[in-house]
Amino acid sequence: MKAEELLRNRLQSPMLRLRYTGAMGQVEWKLKMVNADLSMRQNRQVIRSMTGRIKDADSIARKLRKKGKPVTLEAARECLNDIAGIRVVCYFCDDIDLVAEALRRQQDLRIVKEKDYVRQPKRSGYQSVHMIVGVPICYERWTEEIRVEIQIRSFAMDYWAELDTQMCYKKEHGQAEHVEKKISGYSAILAGVDNQMLELRRSIER
Amino acid sequence: MKAEELLRNRLQSPMLRLRYTGAMGQVEWKLKMVNADLSMRQNRQVIRSMTGRIKDADSIARKLRKKGKPVTLEAARECLNDIAGIRVVCYFCDDIDLVAEALRRQQDLRIVKEKDYVRQPKRSGYQSVHMIVGVPICYERWTEEIRVEIQIRSFAMDYWAELDTQMCYKKEHGQAEHVEKKISGYSAILAGVDNQMLELRRSIER
Amino acid sequence: MKAEELLRNRLQSPMLRLRYTGAMGQVEWKLKMVNADLSMRQNRQVIRSMTGRIKDADSIARKLRKKGKPVTLEAARECLNDIAGIRVVCYFCDDIDLVAEALRRQQDLRIVKEKDYVRQPKRSGYQSVHMIVGVPICYERWTEEIRVEIQIRSFAMDYWAELDTQMCYKKEHGQAEHVEKKISGYSAILAGVDNQMLELRRSIER
Amino acid sequence: MKAEELLRNRLQSPMLRLRYTGAMGQVEWKLKMVNADLSMRQNRQVIRSMTGRIKDADSIARKLRKKGKPVTLEAARECLNDIAGIRVVCYFCDDIDLVAEALRRQQDLRIVKEKDYVRQPKRSGYQSVHMIVGVPICYERWTEEIRVEIQIRSFAMDYWAELDTQMCYKKEHGQAEHVEKKISGYSAILAGVDNQMLELRRSIER
Repeated sequence: MKAEELLRNRLQSPMLRLRYTGAMGQVEWKLKMVNADLSMRQNRQVIRSMTGRIKDADSIARKLRKKGKPVTLEAARECLNDIAGIRVVCYFCDDIDLVAEALRRQQDLRIVKEKDYVRQPKRSGYQSVHMIVGVPICYERWTEEIRVEIQIRSFAMDYWAELDTQMCYKKEHGQAEHVEKKISGYSAILAGVDNQMLELRRSIER
Repeated sequence: MKAEELLRNRLQSPMLRLRYTGAMGQVEWKLKMVNADLSMRQNRQVIRSMTGRIKDADSIARKLRKKGKPVTLEAARECLNDIAGIRVVCYFCDDIDLVAEALRRQQDLRIVKEKDYVRQPKRSGYQSVHMIVGVPICYERWTEEIRVEIQIRSFAMDYWAELDTQMCYKKEHGQAEHVEKKISGYSAILAGVDNQMLELRRSIER
Repeated sequence: MKAEELLRNRLQSPMLRLRYTGAMGQVEWKLKMVNADLSMRQNRQVIRSMTGRIKDADSIARKLRKKGKPVTLEAARECLNDIAGIRVVCYFCDDIDLVAEALRRQQDLRIVKEKDYVRQPKRSGYQSVHMIVGVPICYERWTEEIRVEIQIRSFAMDYWAELDTQMCYKKEHGQAEHVEKKISGYSAILAGVDNQMLELRRSIER
Repeated sequence: MKAEELLRNRLQSPMLRLRYTGAMGQVEWKLKMVNADLSMRQNRQVIRSMTGRIKDADSIARKLRKKGKPVTLEAARECLNDIAGIRVVCYFCDDIDLVAEALRRQQDLRIVKEKDYVRQPKRSGYQSVHMIVGVPICYERWTEEIRVEIQIRSFAMDYWAELDTQMCYKKEHGQAEHVEKKISGYSAILAGVDNQMLELRRSIER
């Protein structure tokens, strides 16, 4: 547990936390600009909510262990892309691509990685677009790139994901498989509702 | 527009706004206590989110007109129950009754009115439990009862209600009936998912 | 250190923290009402800022030890009056009495204790009015009185107090007496400025 | 009043406000980094508080009129440097230079203008260092420089400035000169206390 404590102390130093909150703040501001622009063009709100969080030291240590990495700040900065993360929830499922596309066009963000769990859902039924972006943070004498993970999903996908998390804490090991099958089935039903809502909006817009 | 302006000025006086924000703050604190208590007993989070808002002067004036009342502060305070409102979103549909029941047990809140749009959904498909509570606000020399509206709903009901609001702004009058039918149908499908999620949680808990 | 950890865990339980944040929220709301009322009567802002804080577990443990009490939650609740505290900074020194007087008139606050360090400054030069008030917190079946400490001071007194705190961290034991004498002297000079500012305001008002 | 309304509408557009809040957020983050760095080196807190504000449409219109400029958005963006402003209050008067110096070293901020009202106080007695910085804001296809005004002052200077503002609202025209003389005199007394506090801190540090 010694390593965790050291990591915790270093992570809590204001100089370090501020790098991540600064990079996260930059991306949140970008997303607000993107939302203002898209909402004006679409004549309706596109992003419903946006939540940022900095991973705490315990979760960082757990994740490093799981990956077989040493529990140090250096390993954390190198191997983990989600120390700073932002979840973006859109009203409709076609909004996800609009937001992702606008992020790709930002000249001062570098797209490090993308995963489209909407077109290819996880086995559990999980759906979201994940983007890792690099944000340049300028200090007095040098510039550093801080990575931020952005999860973009529709309201229906968010509903499923949050209920799934609630269930996970409750799942008994014996029933795991049976429960997972059911939950994954609900994901498909919700995706159906999501698409029908979209169809309806489009038919109204026509 | 004269009446609106007068109403707006009076509503913006800090002395008056503070009464409503004070009563709302009291109820939000109660709801946090209720959530802490229920979450401990149920061994899971019960309330997912809680949002308070004070109705602005324009909406108050519009609602008074629609009810055929004079656009004055006195009429507003007497006829409108939702100048201060709180929306409570629970994870599961059986949480709604737990929260409502706990509110009914609070000795310093008076239940002014209740409407159960969960057991009897509106024609549109809208589902929520609405409670109007009276909160005693104590001044130097006298005590006043301020009413606060509380809307309690599940995550699935909240999803439907927010999408419905988005569609409403877009609805053309010609298609209104057709669209309403479809949206109301989705309400039933979502209620199905809501119930299945509950069944699953219960089967895990057993 | 065992006792501290136990205390910390119990203090971090949401049910307990919420009692203190609830009581503090009630008093902050009262103070906002008092400020709105006084500012209207005086035709100028009376309260400049208001800051609330809940004492953390380590400070609670330290204070209990210093008082020779056991480090338990029960001892904390019985012996400590400042687990929840609010600092009120007014623009002028005659505002302090206005705020204190208005708090004394609130029917649902019980004045547990008062100390007037303005009329009788501490040896260090510290000036403020301290009030301990009891706030009734109503649960489902019973009512509890939670104590909140309110410190009321002028802007000049706040300036002195904050600089004094900054110096304290730096004070070397050898020089302590010499430094304290100087700081206490500045308190008198600042009190002079405070009074002259008040005289000037009064001469303008006449 | 027509021009004001037009200006107000354009200023309230989210796309425009976000530019200024974005630039302000960038500078606030820089100042937090500067504070973390300086506080570590000095082994004490350097910045006591930091407050940002966006000028409202009415004040913008008033200032444009006073300068004999047309009341338009274009004139506002060109002629006004303080649409976005941040006030930084330090504990001691020698902290002001530390903060200003650190801002000058930031490679991605352009120093547009500086005024040192500490070394050369205004006739009224007002003291602060004012810096106008240009912040590059990157959009999809182009980069814009948004100006932000930073006022840096000590706690004692802030006390004087806030009391002066309070008095201004009260000043009768007949007495203006007499009052101004007195207030300006207090500025000198407070500067004396400020310097003595600094001397004391330095003698403790030695």
